[in-house]
Amino acid sequence: MPDKNFKDILRKINQFGITKNTDIVELINSLKDTGFNAKRLAIACEIYKEMVNAKNCVKFFGLAGALVPAGLQKVIFDFLNEEFIDILVTTGANLTHDLAEALGYQHLQGTLENAEFDDKILHREEMNRIYDVYMPNKVYEGIEDFVAKIEIPDNDMSVSSFLKFLGKQLPENSNSILRVCYDKDIPIFCPAFTDSGLAMQLGFHNQNLNLNHFKDMLDMVNLAWDAQVAGMCIVGGGVPKNFIMQSLQFCPNSATFAIQITMDRPEPGGLSGASLREAISWGKINEKAKYSTVISDATIALPIILWYLKKSFK
Amino acid sequence: MPDKNFKDILRKINQFGITKNTDIVELINSLKDTGFNAKRLAIACEIYKEMVNAKNCVKFFGLAGALVPAGLQKVIFDFLNEEFIDILVTTGANLTHDLAEALGYQHLQGTLENAEFDDKILHREEMNRIYDVYMPNKVYEGIEDFVAKIEIPDNDMSVSSFLKFLGKQLPENSNSILRVCYDKDIPIFCPAFTDSGLAMQLGFHNQNLNLNHFKDMLDMVNLAWDAQVAGMCIVGGGVPKNFIMQSLQFCPNSATFAIQITMDRPEPGGLSGASLREAISWGKINEKAKYSTVISDATIALPIILWYLKKSFK
Amino acid sequence: MPDKNFKDILRKINQFGITKNTDIVELINSLKDTGFNAKRLAIACEIYKEMVNAKNCVKFFGLAGALVPAGLQKVIFDFLNEEFIDILVTTGANLTHDLAEALGYQHLQGTLENAEFDDKILHREEMNRIYDVYMPNKVYEGIEDFVAKIEIPDNDMSVSSFLKFLGKQLPENSNSILRVCYDKDIPIFCPAFTDSGLAMQLGFHNQNLNLNHFKDMLDMVNLAWDAQVAGMCIVGGGVPKNFIMQSLQFCPNSATFAIQITMDRPEPGGLSGASLREAISWGKINEKAKYSTVISDATIALPIILWYLKKSFK
Amino acid sequence: MPDKNFKDILRKINQFGITKNTDIVELINSLKDTGFNAKRLAIACEIYKEMVNAKNCVKFFGLAGALVPAGLQKVIFDFLNEEFIDILVTTGANLTHDLAEALGYQHLQGTLENAEFDDKILHREEMNRIYDVYMPNKVYEGIEDFVAKIEIPDNDMSVSSFLKFLGKQLPENSNSILRVCYDKDIPIFCPAFTDSGLAMQLGFHNQNLNLNHFKDMLDMVNLAWDAQVAGMCIVGGGVPKNFIMQSLQFCPNSATFAIQITMDRPEPGGLSGASLREAISWGKINEKAKYSTVISDATIALPIILWYLKKSFK
Repeated sequence: MPDKNFKDILRKINQFGITKNTDIVELINSLKDTGFNAKRLAIACEIYKEMVNAKNCVKFFGLAGALVPAGLQKVIFDFLNEEFIDILVTTGANLTHDLAEALGYQHLQGTLENAEFDDKILHREEMNRIYDVYMPNKVYEGIEDFVAKIEIPDNDMSVSSFLKFLGKQLPENSNSILRVCYDKDIPIFCPAFTDSGLAMQLGFHNQNLNLNHFKDMLDMVNLAWDAQVAGMCIVGGGVPKNFIMQSLQFCPNSATFAIQITMDRPEPGGLSGASLREAISWGKINEKAKYSTVISDATIALPIILWYLKKSFK
Repeated sequence: MPDKNFKDILRKINQFGITKNTDIVELINSLKDTGFNAKRLAIACEIYKEMVNAKNCVKFFGLAGALVPAGLQKVIFDFLNEEFIDILVTTGANLTHDLAEALGYQHLQGTLENAEFDDKILHREEMNRIYDVYMPNKVYEGIEDFVAKIEIPDNDMSVSSFLKFLGKQLPENSNSILRVCYDKDIPIFCPAFTDSGLAMQLGFHNQNLNLNHFKDMLDMVNLAWDAQVAGMCIVGGGVPKNFIMQSLQFCPNSATFAIQITMDRPEPGGLSGASLREAISWGKINEKAKYSTVISDATIALPIILWYLKKSFK
Repeated sequence: MPDKNFKDILRKINQFGITKNTDIVELINSLKDTGFNAKRLAIACEIYKEMVNAKNCVKFFGLAGALVPAGLQKVIFDFLNEEFIDILVTTGANLTHDLAEALGYQHLQGTLENAEFDDKILHREEMNRIYDVYMPNKVYEGIEDFVAKIEIPDNDMSVSSFLKFLGKQLPENSNSILRVCYDKDIPIFCPAFTDSGLAMQLGFHNQNLNLNHFKDMLDMVNLAWDAQVAGMCIVGGGVPKNFIMQSLQFCPNSATFAIQITMDRPEPGGLSGASLREAISWGKINEKAKYSTVISDATIALPIILWYLKKSFK
Repeated sequence: MPDKNFKDILRKINQFGITKNTDIVELINSLKDTGFNAKRLAIACEIYKEMVNAKNCVKFFGLAGALVPAGLQKVIFDFLNEEFIDILVTTGANLTHDLAEALGYQHLQGTLENAEFDDKILHREEMNRIYDVYMPNKVYEGIEDFVAKIEIPDNDMSVSSFLKFLGKQLPENSNSILRVCYDKDIPIFCPAFTDSGLAMQLGFHNQNLNLNHFKDMLDMVNLAWDAQVAGMCIVGGGVPKNFIMQSLQFCPNSATFAIQITMDRPEPGGLSGASLREAISWGKINEKAKYSTVISDATIALPIILWYLKKSFK
């Protein structure tokens, strides 16, 4: 840390203005020279743009949290469809909810003034709650009907191969993450797949199923190994964050770009909230990397980043 | 809580899209029907617009946190200049930093990759740190020179009267909060004024100064009492939040609109993170109020709200 | 929610005292009648004691976070050794670090005043950082040597069967979680096992390994199904929390006791911070359950709970 | 930062055990050599003990948050009564609630399973909520009756002089913070006094009251100036934290010991969550200080620290 020359580094904070004609690129450019999380969000946008522009950069995207229920399915779809993501690592929950929407089911919302329904009554009425989003139990029945008809080509295929196969079964022209990854040939990894409603249905209907999680692990390491330049965008921590990180740890080229959007913090010591700088000690992010952690709800930060990228690459 | 009829209330989550031509009003309208904090931010925007439109609504604005150092002086200036705020309650720190910028001093920023200067070296070099913002000690000297020349008209005047007097001394056409409040005749309350660098300088130079804090308290209660409709926007909690809340508690009309932007949470039990719903039990917010708490860094949420308001009232 | 009769429920807050002769059971009893997280911690202790006392109660324990590196290996060992846990669900990271300690390696700590080492230098010196804990890279080499010699009995065995086999290889009389689970015949589930350093070493050395994660999933559902009474203690959220929850969702008896210790919060919408009350809507926790979420660093709360239990059952 | 010699600093993490005979001093000694917040809490205990032992050390204690309603009045009383505090800086809210308890009123609690009363009904029944603590409106009436009878000796006295006078009016042998500070001649500062229910009642009944807040500010600076050794324990941030910090900023001896217990974090940039290290850059804490920030609910950490101190100084 160049302690002695901080005077060479420090620059004026920008007391920026906003007009009704401000556009998103201009706003982000203004925020870049401020402080706190506005600055970090702006720099995250800038790093992401640079990742997209960088020749041969493999863009890893780690997605935890219940973003599909919260209404961000199309936003994530667009990240994939615009090729802002090369490799997706996510949770079984996100895929379960993506499948539900792809099959025509919907998630529901309340109002802020009536935010506190009695969970006992919700239970009796078979309405599952995810903070302020609701999913009727009957969605599970729809998923079960769908799963029951699937003929899995190989009980020992990797999870990512299975997810590609699954995406192919889904309607074209939907906003499905699974479908667009199939269409665009973008690998989806889901290391904790059996920790999901979708996997439970699959397991109940296919007692011999043994999707090969170790093959996924090795495939992921190979993809990381082959990346001449690696970048990562981590949303919400969890298993997706670590799975991307561990794959890059022993590679010739660790990550050169890193973005993290999370509400978790370093002090409790868990990986979800760990700083990106910490990952340098492990060799997961390289010493010369550009990185930015944005402490923000992803439902606010992700749409802004997408908007900035779409406008930048119009 | 209308537990039995939740089915009448629940509506579809909006899986919204973004294009390069999206504008801020359209984005907020999309987010309104999602979940988590994106929804809450969108509803906060909508409530703020409604406050501005509401006839006779007195808009209280509580501002804690170091937003001027972080580059939001002009954003707050615009909230005042556009008359989105009728009564400002803030901290001595924000006023101290506002004065510094008004006098031509600047706050400084580092880079994310060099974010961790040694505070011991910063101290030796007389550079004060506010997370990732920096303020040279010499700014204090500039404030002292300014304060030493002020002739306070009345040692027993209220803090808000003094702050109005102070605003008048500052350059026209600056982005100063103090100056625009003078120009627009917007009262500024600062209940913990003596908890600030500005007040320390004033006290050192005026040993007989006894600004009347109780007069402020009573003036504020009278303003709250006279409000036919009251609305509040609380940024960051702290004393400004409680001071607005306590003033409305015993009034004929408690708040009808309430917005809160904070990173604090209810569980530790402090007022800063308390839910707005809790304020209903105290009679500070009324039973039919519209309200929204956004868990977000204010440096991200406030510019978005301002942008939305400017575009909505173009 | 029995809104009308809150007056029947409310009791006096206990303004409790502490003496040098206070003991842990007395302290917890005092805190039970206070507010905020002290109360919640006290009630968590009480619920855990009740779980241990309850006849036929199956105690599920979800363990995320880096607690072994932080020095809590022996605390978790004791929870297992005292039979306060019947089924453990954890992360691959915790098992990797447990194995390291069992093989004689150590985790390291700095001092608070020298808490900010340069991660670039740590990297060059092959010292991996976990917030304020450090692990030399050579530990991985030791794990690799161990793993290279293991002869896995069946490439298609479940992860939990493998972990039992692994525990058997470890030194008796160590404080190892893996070993005590073998000794006590306590099943360990690790749904995201391939998301760990241990699994990577296993995969590199055994290209045909395909531990059957679906078998684990079904075994876990069967254990949950058979539980006449179910209780859960969730530390830190993540995959272990959801894996326990999903297993109980469709069972005849969902959880009757539930404790959660976490720094995560509900507002970002992820499962880690979700309230226990929310799980009632899903049928994972039953309507008459006793539950308590403690917002606390687990390194503080877990030793207190263990201490309370040991003293209560002396 | 001594980056090069981290190897000289790093020591083994202690995988500590707990028995039913463990006592609090032994537990804290064990936690000292762990990681995360357990370590920080243990070091906070140790620093506090050292502050008490240090000859001529003036112990400043900043108390924000609603700890009296939560049941910690007697804990804070004991910190004062045992002379673990030399100067108390607190909020008007804590003093209002302390007065209420001293006058014989009580705060109330619910149960965790019935934690979500309807605030509208609470309002109609005149029951004010503070997270999970409740205070009937009639307490305000009792405070008003008390306040109406007080004959304030001097309208222009400082707030701290008034609080001393107030303490004298309260029953001996109560657990009142105000009373024990009078008995022990411990100054109480309350920079935002007019931001409280107590001050509102005083103001309503004494229209000429103008307690001299600037005198408090100067008195506090003088006390800080005279401290040969200064230590601070900051609970919860807010105005009390800054008021102590600003008083020490320009003194010959800034703080040599510093403890902070808070759930706030640095990233949003506010002072409440600012690291203690940051205060070194300002000269509020000195370069050689021992310091520890504990991210913990104060209702858990404060009783533990008191218990440790009582046992250590038995």
